[in-house]
Amino acid sequence: MAQRFVRVRTIQKQTYYGLLQLDRSVQVLDAPPWLEGQPTDLNLEPDSYQLLAPCAPTKILAVGRNYPHHASEMGTSVPEEPLFFLKPPTTVTADSHPIYYPKQSQQLDYEGELALVVGTRTSHCMPEQAHSRIWGYTITNDVTARDLQRKDSQWARSKGFDSFCPLGPWIVRNLSAGANLQTFLNDAPEPLQSTSIDQMVFSAEFLVSYISQVMTLLPGDLILTGTPAGVGAMQIGDRVRVQIEGIGSLENTVAAPKVEG
Amino acid sequence: MAQRFVRVRTIQKQTYYGLLQLDRSVQVLDAPPWLEGQPTDLNLEPDSYQLLAPCAPTKILAVGRNYPHHASEMGTSVPEEPLFFLKPPTTVTADSHPIYYPKQSQQLDYEGELALVVGTRTSHCMPEQAHSRIWGYTITNDVTARDLQRKDSQWARSKGFDSFCPLGPWIVRNLSAGANLQTFLNDAPEPLQSTSIDQMVFSAEFLVSYISQVMTLLPGDLILTGTPAGVGAMQIGDRVRVQIEGIGSLENTVAAPKVEG
Repeated sequence: MAQRFVRVRTIQKQTYYGLLQLDRSVQVLDAPPWLEGQPTDLNLEPDSYQLLAPCAPTKILAVGRNYPHHASEMGTSVPEEPLFFLKPPTTVTADSHPIYYPKQSQQLDYEGELALVVGTRTSHCMPEQAHSRIWGYTITNDVTARDLQRKDSQWARSKGFDSFCPLGPWIVRNLSAGANLQTFLNDAPEPLQSTSIDQMVFSAEFLVSYISQVMTLLPGDLILTGTPAGVGAMQIGDRVRVQIEGIGSLENTVAAPKVEG
Repeated sequence: MAQRFVRVRTIQKQTYYGLLQLDRSVQVLDAPPWLEGQPTDLNLEPDSYQLLAPCAPTKILAVGRNYPHHASEMGTSVPEEPLFFLKPPTTVTADSHPIYYPKQSQQLDYEGELALVVGTRTSHCMPEQAHSRIWGYTITNDVTARDLQRKDSQWARSKGFDSFCPLGPWIVRNLSAGANLQTFLNDAPEPLQSTSIDQMVFSAEFLVSYISQVMTLLPGDLILTGTPAGVGAMQIGDRVRVQIEGIGSLENTVAAPKVEG
């Protein structure tokens, strides 16, 4: 089994990067693994921590209409150049944590996606250099308030609510080119989204290169590579699961609006 | 004179928050001032540091078409609700540092703006509570590749290049409601933009409240409050100065594209 890189919070409220072991204990690293984090003597027992999102990005880039069938279902075509937008870091939430349904929206959609984790400070990188800048791969759900997305010219609101970027449960270093991505709702056996990631219009490497011509990518930054056909609405109480072959699955439940002062 | 809160890097590469004194020395604080940073015994001589941007935001929210005359000059009207978008933190640059003209663009515009610095973690805050969440005020230039903005549906690229958010030179705690904002190019005595900030469609407090209904604002986060009429193009070699009464002025020079591997 591939090594699974996690980020955890202990009962004592310490945050660590680590390696998840088969017995669910975590071998703690002394730094993020993409910053040369090395194993320490600390091993966390399975009941002594909770999983966090596996990285803490300074920025999240997301790519729109990067699978032809999804572009069609949205009534558009694939763009000539990558169409990217930003999600704020406050959207990030962990596996098994709630997605909060905002009171401003009446249509909350899932969008299962492959996420790239950048390992190295990257600016003006050529596509052929880009592979080495991708430290690993994880799973995400680019949750979207579809009614607000249709209403707003910019997507910062519709894709920017707290909890709109479930991420994890862990990062793996390698992914096969034809890995399957599927999204399931509740107990339905049939996926609502199902594709091979090799159907992406712009490859992972091309996206890293393209975005790095605009802005410097920093270690731990995320690129969400776009969602395939089959997007649809979630209701409060629904469980949504995004699964990528060779990584695992990310599951979150939709919860009523969270309001705090 | 109002207290001027700065962030500096010393010759020894240490980064500090501090208070700028009249003799240009800096009284170092032991933490960001919005996190209760207190004065230390360390005082930096004028030649021993350089000014950085005065905060290091985890996110930058920017508001579009928030002055009626600017909305008109862009051929649109003011929005019914605030129109906001995100700029990545890698856009931030300090006073006197270059704005790099991207090779992808043939029209680089200045947009002088008032920036709000959030002091407190803020979620779902009412407009009447919002004033206390604004720790201070500074000056910014929401640099925009206008040709790319017209071409792209999302503004992450056109407003997201490295160096597209000059910020500073410092933060002040208070601002008079009718303070004047002006933008000057090179040695022209007449401003290209000139307005009182009380002409904003949505007030600073309304913006904080509105955005906090979507995403949690964190200490040091920025809200750029929109640009007035008079936006225009800059050429390589131009000096652009944004001036706000009661704060000071922010000046940057446009430089040839920066390319690194």
